[in-house]
Amino acid sequence: MNNLLATAPAAPMRVVDVIRKKRDGQELSRAEIELLIEGYTRGTIPDYQVAAWLMAGVLRGFTRQETAALTEVMLHSGEVLDLSEFSPKKVDKHSTGGVGDKTSLVLAPVVAAGGLLVPMISGRGLGHTGGTLDKLESIPGFNVHLSLAEFRRVLRGCGCSMMGQTEEIAPADRKLYALRDVTGTVESPNLICASIMSKKLAEGIDALLLDVKTGSGAFMKREEQAELLAELMVETGERMGKRVVALITDMDQPIGHKVGNALEVDEVLEILRGNGPSDLRRLCLELAAWMFQLGGVSDGLAEGRKTAAQLIDSGRGLEKFREMVELQGGDLSVIDHPAKLPRASHSQEILSPAKGYVAVIESEAIGIAGVILGGGRERKEDSVDPSVGIVLHKKVGDAVGHGEPLATLYYNSESRAARARPLIEQSYRISEAPPANRRPLVLRVIQGSGGN
Amino acid sequence: MNNLLATAPAAPMRVVDVIRKKRDGQELSRAEIELLIEGYTRGTIPDYQVAAWLMAGVLRGFTRQETAALTEVMLHSGEVLDLSEFSPKKVDKHSTGGVGDKTSLVLAPVVAAGGLLVPMISGRGLGHTGGTLDKLESIPGFNVHLSLAEFRRVLRGCGCSMMGQTEEIAPADRKLYALRDVTGTVESPNLICASIMSKKLAEGIDALLLDVKTGSGAFMKREEQAELLAELMVETGERMGKRVVALITDMDQPIGHKVGNALEVDEVLEILRGNGPSDLRRLCLELAAWMFQLGGVSDGLAEGRKTAAQLIDSGRGLEKFREMVELQGGDLSVIDHPAKLPRASHSQEILSPAKGYVAVIESEAIGIAGVILGGGRERKEDSVDPSVGIVLHKKVGDAVGHGEPLATLYYNSESRAARARPLIEQSYRISEAPPANRRPLVLRVIQGSGGN
Repeated sequence: MNNLLATAPAAPMRVVDVIRKKRDGQELSRAEIELLIEGYTRGTIPDYQVAAWLMAGVLRGFTRQETAALTEVMLHSGEVLDLSEFSPKKVDKHSTGGVGDKTSLVLAPVVAAGGLLVPMISGRGLGHTGGTLDKLESIPGFNVHLSLAEFRRVLRGCGCSMMGQTEEIAPADRKLYALRDVTGTVESPNLICASIMSKKLAEGIDALLLDVKTGSGAFMKREEQAELLAELMVETGERMGKRVVALITDMDQPIGHKVGNALEVDEVLEILRGNGPSDLRRLCLELAAWMFQLGGVSDGLAEGRKTAAQLIDSGRGLEKFREMVELQGGDLSVIDHPAKLPRASHSQEILSPAKGYVAVIESEAIGIAGVILGGGRERKEDSVDPSVGIVLHKKVGDAVGHGEPLATLYYNSESRAARARPLIEQSYRISEAPPANRRPLVLRVIQGSGGN
Repeated sequence: MNNLLATAPAAPMRVVDVIRKKRDGQELSRAEIELLIEGYTRGTIPDYQVAAWLMAGVLRGFTRQETAALTEVMLHSGEVLDLSEFSPKKVDKHSTGGVGDKTSLVLAPVVAAGGLLVPMISGRGLGHTGGTLDKLESIPGFNVHLSLAEFRRVLRGCGCSMMGQTEEIAPADRKLYALRDVTGTVESPNLICASIMSKKLAEGIDALLLDVKTGSGAFMKREEQAELLAELMVETGERMGKRVVALITDMDQPIGHKVGNALEVDEVLEILRGNGPSDLRRLCLELAAWMFQLGGVSDGLAEGRKTAAQLIDSGRGLEKFREMVELQGGDLSVIDHPAKLPRASHSQEILSPAKGYVAVIESEAIGIAGVILGGGRERKEDSVDPSVGIVLHKKVGDAVGHGEPLATLYYNSESRAARARPLIEQSYRISEAPPANRRPLVLRVIQGSGGN
């Protein structure tokens, strides 16, 4: 009935007809997507109509044309930064989320030290994955709630800044994101693409490196899912005139040894001192090399990796980190004395039940254990405990003796520890022989026709 | 992530997990359906979560088990009438909606005159179809807003009563229905079944006759769709211990000659005087015969048809109608002087463009024309004009001369008439030869194992 009434003379475009069109699997026009998203952002279209449309989209899918239109409309729902006053190329990196993934905190200062501008708008922990903002806030005083003017001032001061999404940036995304979270409509590659790209393109960047994670600790468990999302994001970014490269990277075990906000900052400081776990260092060098490449300041990836290593080993990355922390109000003493970072009051070890080799670490379970300890949010309104977390002494491939510590839990609540412990115990699988054929760090590089 | 967090120890059942389960095509338990519907009715679960769930259900479908659980939970969201004080069997009829379908106004008094109790809770016009309440309200003073106590009083007085859904009856359905209408989630046979059956079973009836319409003027255009809905409703009713029979009836052209609220009451009075169009009379006799059969007061359908014809031709049905109108505050003078019903100020004829036979009347277009003239609602907040409508002088199979009137529009607004006229013109198709093979009135009878 609605369809026929709508095609009768003089009928305006109605939201319910847009919902029905998507429900019936048809492609929406840009005007229809605008009607919906602009009305929702302004508050003239209610949550319940958008919720129905989102579910229809999750189940029916979106075309690439629709995804690009959605991204653009969401991007232009708010302010788009103009950083043309800065002469260096503006390059950012975005990760789709993992466990123990603290590379942003290394990359922003190192890449800025390499001569590029890194204006990074980051997020909170989501589900079982950690969030850059939560990690930064474990540095006492560090302010992630900058205005755009303050963000600009920090960028002017040190070449990088890390802040949260403000009211002005992609307000449509903030509203949609909150709605998706409570309506079971998070899991759509097209909606994820539009959400990420609308925020990132609002940063006024020239180029973007995407770290699309796949494996047991990622949202995209299967490599094809990660590739589809990566292709969508690369294509959407290039349609809007940006250089975008996506790396599909392995997230089958946590990155580095530490999971938890202050624990991860501690590990970042180890890396910036030229130490730290080799998998984390290698991933940082690889991502930095791609950012240098995208920013046009290195001649090939090999040179980029070398530059990044030098910036780290010379202490110039750490120096840049110190500048950023200072400009954003953080306590500098934790940089020289990481022991001053928030520390949990209790710890307990998890011992290996057998002699052998670590065959598997189920990373999502490790992430959930971290959330349960208080390092993330079980409900939106929860606050985060910066001090808790997990240190993994053994990673995949490591030999382990019977009764030797696999991991240590850091916690402030016995009941939380009691809930988290079995998840960690069950996430480790010990085999008699060393596991064969481990995946490389970077599984695939996806770039559009414009990249090289 | 939500799934894993939800299976971690001590996690309660969360609405978002119920939504995700339906989104992923799984069957919901009765407890999950209760959580959702009871929370929504109480107001603790917001519209947007239910909207997402509804869309997931429309696209993924519901099992028969889910449909029955949904119906029961919706039924028990409000009061269920207890009419056990009345000795006759309580039998109602429900139509899924058509164009020119005014049988309820004939059946309630005729079946009550035949010795059964007919407690009929009816609806408003929906989309292109007319509504019993809107038709009744074209009788000046007729009150459809009865309390349950008044409803009981009218039933005691004359054996039948027709009223609107009250606050007490299936409040979950009222809330869900309003939400479905604006979220593109009307078209699900399972949701339609739960909506109809939860209201009808609240009437405290022993048996229910369903008139499930199929064809160009019905919501279910295809016979299979109508059959699926009919089977669902019969099964759901029988699970709850009621005798339920569904007739699949032809709705390929409007029923009778008149479409529009007061016009249809006029035609009801013609029928109750033993006159009126033969297709409408035949349908009324057939439906009445089934109601007598369900109520156990006739020995076979042939006898039931004869009884119904006698009740009409003797004037006893009209007498019962008069009693009901009086008890519900309606102006009795319109019964003897139908010319006193509301009349539109203007009319215009639509003439046949050719000599031949009426091959097709697109009934949905006729229904929409009626809505546009003001006889129904284009938006929920619109009021209805009782006086406007369409009289069809020619029906399918009729011979027609060039320039002979096909139909007359009755209207109060020139601009509305200008919008409605082309729809009526285009709905008629004239062929040279008479159309062959017209469908019978009743296409199929569907009854459960308990019916006979």
